Amino acid sequence: MKAKTPKESLSILTEIVLPNDTNNLNNLMGGRLLHWMDIASAIAAHRHSKRIVVTASVNNVSFNQPISQGSIVTLEAKVSRAFTSSMEVFIDVWVEDNQEPGKRTKANEAIYTFVAVDQLGNPINVPPIAPETHEEKQRYEGALRRKQLSLILGGKMKPEDATELRALFFNEEAK
Amino acid sequence: MKAKTPKESLSILTEIVLPNDTNNLNNLMGGRLLHWMDIASAIAAHRHSKRIVVTASVNNVSFNQPISQGSIVTLEAKVSRAFTSSMEVFIDVWVEDNQEPGKRTKANEAIYTFVAVDQLGNPINVPPIAPETHEEKQRYEGALRRKQLSLILGGKMKPEDATELRALFFNEEAK
Amino acid sequence: MKAKTPKESLSILTEIVLPNDTNNLNNLMGGRLLHWMDIASAIAAHRHSKRIVVTASVNNVSFNQPISQGSIVTLEAKVSRAFTSSMEVFIDVWVEDNQEPGKRTKANEAIYTFVAVDQLGNPINVPPIAPETHEEKQRYEGALRRKQLSLILGGKMKPEDATELRALFFNEEAK
Amino acid sequence: MKAKTPKESLSILTEIVLPNDTNNLNNLMGGRLLHWMDIASAIAAHRHSKRIVVTASVNNVSFNQPISQGSIVTLEAKVSRAFTSSMEVFIDVWVEDNQEPGKRTKANEAIYTFVAVDQLGNPINVPPIAPETHEEKQRYEGALRRKQLSLILGGKMKPEDATELRALFFNEEAK
Amino acid sequence: MKAKTPKESLSILTEIVLPNDTNNLNNLMGGRLLHWMDIASAIAAHRHSKRIVVTASVNNVSFNQPISQGSIVTLEAKVSRAFTSSMEVFIDVWVEDNQEPGKRTKANEAIYTFVAVDQLGNPINVPPIAPETHEEKQRYEGALRRKQLSLILGGKMKPEDATELRALFFNEEAK
Amino acid sequence: MKAKTPKESLSILTEIVLPNDTNNLNNLMGGRLLHWMDIASAIAAHRHSKRIVVTASVNNVSFNQPISQGSIVTLEAKVSRAFTSSMEVFIDVWVEDNQEPGKRTKANEAIYTFVAVDQLGNPINVPPIAPETHEEKQRYEGALRRKQLSLILGGKMKPEDATELRALFFNEEAK
Repeated sequence: MKAKTPKESLSILTEIVLPNDTNNLNNLMGGRLLHWMDIASAIAAHRHSKRIVVTASVNNVSFNQPISQGSIVTLEAKVSRAFTSSMEVFIDVWVEDNQEPGKRTKANEAIYTFVAVDQLGNPINVPPIAPETHEEKQRYEGALRRKQLSLILGGKMKPEDATELRALFFNEEAK
Repeated sequence: MKAKTPKESLSILTEIVLPNDTNNLNNLMGGRLLHWMDIASAIAAHRHSKRIVVTASVNNVSFNQPISQGSIVTLEAKVSRAFTSSMEVFIDVWVEDNQEPGKRTKANEAIYTFVAVDQLGNPINVPPIAPETHEEKQRYEGALRRKQLSLILGGKMKPEDATELRALFFNEEAK
Repeated sequence: MKAKTPKESLSILTEIVLPNDTNNLNNLMGGRLLHWMDIASAIAAHRHSKRIVVTASVNNVSFNQPISQGSIVTLEAKVSRAFTSSMEVFIDVWVEDNQEPGKRTKANEAIYTFVAVDQLGNPINVPPIAPETHEEKQRYEGALRRKQLSLILGGKMKPEDATELRALFFNEEAK
Repeated sequence: MKAKTPKESLSILTEIVLPNDTNNLNNLMGGRLLHWMDIASAIAAHRHSKRIVVTASVNNVSFNQPISQGSIVTLEAKVSRAFTSSMEVFIDVWVEDNQEPGKRTKANEAIYTFVAVDQLGNPINVPPIAPETHEEKQRYEGALRRKQLSLILGGKMKPEDATELRALFFNEEAK
Repeated sequence: MKAKTPKESLSILTEIVLPNDTNNLNNLMGGRLLHWMDIASAIAAHRHSKRIVVTASVNNVSFNQPISQGSIVTLEAKVSRAFTSSMEVFIDVWVEDNQEPGKRTKANEAIYTFVAVDQLGNPINVPPIAPETHEEKQRYEGALRRKQLSLILGGKMKPEDATELRALFFNEEAK
Repeated sequence: MKAKTPKESLSILTEIVLPNDTNNLNNLMGGRLLHWMDIASAIAAHRHSKRIVVTASVNNVSFNQPISQGSIVTLEAKVSRAFTSSMEVFIDVWVEDNQEPGKRTKANEAIYTFVAVDQLGNPINVPPIAPETHEEKQRYEGALRRKQLSLILGGKMKPEDATELRALFFNEEAK
């Protein structure tokens, strides 16, 4: 299959934080954001594969800053790497500044993995990714390490075989 | 503060998978489950701390088996360990067998972390956890390793300082 | 069919009262609670019968105390008695105390009746109930009286034939 | 306060049964209908009292016929009687015939009771009802009997004091 | 086909403005009202045609007055004219006065057009309309002019052929 | 105020058509799309003005092609012209081709108008628009004619004063 660029899979979601999306501090609930991120990244994975896609896993996600009710939240998702039938997707979450035009701050970053399947739910091959920008290349490189970590945590790979990941604990540059 | 048991924080959610919760294969969408898991674990963290709690992070989550429309899904969440103002919560997700009474299969397992805050959103101390069962003790032990992994991935700890985690790559028993 | 205990059908739902669930006093709307109680009791009836179940009737329900926005509400439903193809289900509704750990107050109690049906919607037999606790036995006993009342109110039984119910008006102990 | 007619409180809701409103037989779930009936009757009670109203109780409700997905459901609610600060409301539920113009069949009938309250939630007086049609007069008459039944079932009245209701068990005409 | 009156298609929807329906000024969002108007008018078109109906177009709609959270909104929709397989529907939107019984003010007026289709989505004929009241006759008369305007704006009619509409720019009475 | 480009206001929404968004032919309901278009255009108007914005009117909208369940729908909204305190916004609606990567077809085009208001709901000035592309310039030019049409239809302008609009009926080029 012919490689595609991450940009071809770019999916953008814009949401306004409504009352029912908020917790008792009137800030966006984590669960709602996780749900939106799943939709944004599923669309990106679909755009890359043109197949039905199902969520396979979610990487470590951190919620660093509260997002208040009424905020405009933009999610941008792009496939960062493809492995046989699975796709890793990066989601960047932005919150709009209420005053300064065009200004926005990054609220969050997350990584979801999807598998492309046929109508019976069996895995099916997807095109490889050809990263273009510096950031896309970095994310592409890191994908293998994250895949190993996920396999180890899931008990499907022995730590000593995770060569990419081991480097993390001996060599800062590999990061 | 006096320690509490994980059992005191147990929160149970039961959901029926409705049409709008499903993808094009008529199976539960990952994003909806992530949302339900956030609610279940937020309630567990609230029960432990009796404070407003906000989602701090989600650990690596895997989706191993499809859950079909109409299924009855039960989420059970319990605080596994508390650190100053943060609480790690384990969520076990069960799907009910449609035939055999009382039988159910585990569909999923996830770990969310919450921070207890006051009305202004500032972190506030929570009671420690005193695990009781074998599984609770295992989860309690693993929490420190997971915390270190999360700090490294977030760039807040140097890999060489993560003594608990490093063991993972040299010594299988530490797992 | 072999009898089952009420406990085998126990279904637990936990909900947080969100803004859209509330009336102009910021308290939970009755209609939303009736909806939640229907889901909780339908799951209990399904657990008992392992069949598709449809709501047949709702008994007199009282709303005694307001439940405020942000409250954690727990619904516990158990089949109290089975008649051929119908099942009476008791739902106890609890509201969590925001301060004291483990403490909760009863907000509500309701009784729904379900019928088990096959794929064409025809009634189908269900196992009998074998009550265990004192409360389960009381509820089991009262079910016949409630069934008679329901039949009379629906014009399907003559009052003079409702022997169980008549006792209510002559003999306090029968209550 | 000056009496009002039931007609002045008439509230009409029309709903289309959507996929998420249905059970596994593709029929309207009882809980959803209970929710819609609460909204319809709350609006009727509000129109009568021009006050904030809260659901006080729901009478015995029966679900006799399935309502299929895609159906158009019309709910008509009218205050049947007022007692100091409470109002009994009848809700008639109609399902539209898909072929014959103007034809519809009655799917359901339910009775909800509301209390009018001030901003602090304290009960407040409402105008009396002056029934006009034959059906309105019948429903007005029956309201007292239903109120007694509700009080007895709630343990707030002794059966021997329920003179209206006792008649039900000796004299068919009183029904 | 035998003509029907607008009244036979009358559809009434009543909604309470909930928190999630509102913008940052706590007033009903335009988009939610557009959605409700679509449902109300689709039901009216269905009542007239007894067919599946799909939205074909929305005329110019103005939002003149804010509708605050907690308001009771009533939508009344009636078919104003039928052309072969299409139906023009008028929707009047009323907001209830919170004090004075029976009083309400008109908040909005909109015109939607629907096409009746068979199971494959092909257009199918509908009965003509026989207007009765003065307002119904006015709306019936104006429908042709609006249809021409819509065809011109959609590039499907030459302005010089729109005889009804041209009159608008030369002769006030034609309006 | 300094002029801004339409591009600075660009807002993109991506939605998957879920079961509850569809009519009885399993196609997207018009009302849901109208709702999504309102959100997309409100965000564009907010990005242009950095103010609270309220929907003022919706222009003639046509629904030309059915959008099936499961489709990925992308809405792109940009301010086309600003008048004192009001902004006209164009929304282009695209449906993704399920096979060919990057291909999509235009399903719809709509025009909404918003007014920027302060915290009390009073109109407030917004920056002018400086169109850049050929399409943006065309839409900018047409805005005045549409404004006149809207004023006439709303009875706020005499047809003979609508110089821009009159041209439409005499001179094809003016279109």
